Amino acid sequence: MGTPEENIRSFKFERVLNQDTGRKTLNLLGTIDGQYAIITAEKTAFSATSPATLVSPDQGLTALNLLQKNDIYHWFMGTIAQSAADNAAVKVNMIYPCTDVHIKKYSAQQLHMVVETPEIYDKYVLKYIKQKTEGGRLNWVYNILSHKEESEKIIFEDEDPKMGFILLPDLKWDLVTMTTLYLSVIVHRTDIRSIRDFTPAHIPFLNGLRTKVLNAVSEKYSLSRDFLKIYVHYQPSYYHFHIHVVHISHDMGASASVGKAILLDEVIQVLEVMKIAQSASGKELGYKDLDMTYTLGEEHDLWKKVFGPLSSGAEPTI
Amino acid sequence: MGTPEENIRSFKFERVLNQDTGRKTLNLLGTIDGQYAIITAEKTAFSATSPATLVSPDQGLTALNLLQKNDIYHWFMGTIAQSAADNAAVKVNMIYPCTDVHIKKYSAQQLHMVVETPEIYDKYVLKYIKQKTEGGRLNWVYNILSHKEESEKIIFEDEDPKMGFILLPDLKWDLVTMTTLYLSVIVHRTDIRSIRDFTPAHIPFLNGLRTKVLNAVSEKYSLSRDFLKIYVHYQPSYYHFHIHVVHISHDMGASASVGKAILLDEVIQVLEVMKIAQSASGKELGYKDLDMTYTLGEEHDLWKKVFGPLSSGAEPTI
Repeated sequence: MGTPEENIRSFKFERVLNQDTGRKTLNLLGTIDGQYAIITAEKTAFSATSPATLVSPDQGLTALNLLQKNDIYHWFMGTIAQSAADNAAVKVNMIYPCTDVHIKKYSAQQLHMVVETPEIYDKYVLKYIKQKTEGGRLNWVYNILSHKEESEKIIFEDEDPKMGFILLPDLKWDLVTMTTLYLSVIVHRTDIRSIRDFTPAHIPFLNGLRTKVLNAVSEKYSLSRDFLKIYVHYQPSYYHFHIHVVHISHDMGASASVGKAILLDEVIQVLEVMKIAQSASGKELGYKDLDMTYTLGEEHDLWKKVFGPLSSGAEPTI
Repeated sequence: MGTPEENIRSFKFERVLNQDTGRKTLNLLGTIDGQYAIITAEKTAFSATSPATLVSPDQGLTALNLLQKNDIYHWFMGTIAQSAADNAAVKVNMIYPCTDVHIKKYSAQQLHMVVETPEIYDKYVLKYIKQKTEGGRLNWVYNILSHKEESEKIIFEDEDPKMGFILLPDLKWDLVTMTTLYLSVIVHRTDIRSIRDFTPAHIPFLNGLRTKVLNAVSEKYSLSRDFLKIYVHYQPSYYHFHIHVVHISHDMGASASVGKAILLDEVIQVLEVMKIAQSASGKELGYKDLDMTYTLGEEHDLWKKVFGPLSSGAEPTI
């Protein structure tokens, strides 16, 4: 086993796992000394500290090729000054040796739009959710809620067991850059697994949560309340009710896209309409009665066990 | 006035208009020969044709600095081989001379989350929509629908004046790359300005549209129907009902994010709940009765004329 530099230089390329031409990233699988390794590369962002030097031939554009010109519009391709020490062109991560779990994690997944009807939810998805919540799988959440773990991260807490919540930064936030602010709100009550459990009876809880979260975050960070975007995920990554609070200017990609994210305000509006329907008809209504349309990757258990089989006419194996 | 290369080299930097650290772009305002010019730069994506050479010291990583190491995880910063002619590091556009309209277009806009109540819609937004639909402002849409313009672009048409639509590629699609497929559906009927006009009576229209669009697109491009994501915008960019059809793997950024996009399936579900409420209570219900929460840039007329004034306690000027 050599130094990390020697190891990366002896990387034998096998295949591209994933590529994002928008964000300029590349994930490669290969081997080093016969063991699997993953190399992920990402072009760096432009330096914000010296934008004035962008056009200079020594510090910015070291070479420049005119591609095309049309009236006032000009297109060039160019090279830019770089240095691995203080002006890198690329960030490179190496995972070596890596496992199948790493390979799966860094691979592109084929996505599918699925429609989860109330029948599919009832018959299959509920069973999946039960598997995901039993056997201590949510202990890490309860550890946060009881201050056993991560208590130093808590930004704000409302201790009320029914209406309260804990507010803490998401791992993806650097805690500094306001325009990439990303916080999680984990509620104290343990009876809501996902928005499928919501009925009109939860409107006061959600309205209260909305107000308290907006107040706490805007006060803590001196941010105007209308800079904050609040949404939930369906399917969520874990089945204890939580919401996402992000800065409105932060491009969250798939995490904030329709087919994955739903505005908290929209959830409340849908429940308000259900309330009218319920009080007029006398019949109980809730999110469990809706068709939910969302995006699923082929590696997700719900695709493998439920929607994949259903799409080929087979019986789910859950 | 020199050559384009001479012009860009004599660019005098004034200020950063916008920066996207996720997509690695930078927009600068400055002057050339005393006239305003905009330079936009974007780092290039990794070449997909030669991923195997990424780690080589001459073709890929020309220099490499280990930043950190933790067990199997290693982080490096590096420099990469580049050539303005055939392996550029950066694409640069120059607009020179440019106008105020260009400057506004390439500038970052402060965004706000706004809640458009039924009262605000009724009192102010409807007036704005009327301004945007009168005086021939939608003639370009009617030209498409009557085959006067862009008829060569039509991919599919259902000519029924009530239930029909025209399907054509969005300008942002290259017409080739399937994973970035982006199509627009413009309906023939002219009585729907936005989703605010929808009531439960429109459910059959929307269900029919959904089925016909999914069939037409999946057949035309031999794509599985569950690779297609269908959504609408509120506020839309023009007030004649249209929907967006994109490939599920395409990262659409803000265009597909909550606070701007709403899944067509979600619209249908909300109308279904309204239908139950309506038939039980006898009271008419529609999207005009909901609070709509969405993102508005400060350059949008609705911010300048309605929500900006309202947020500072002033009367809208619309």
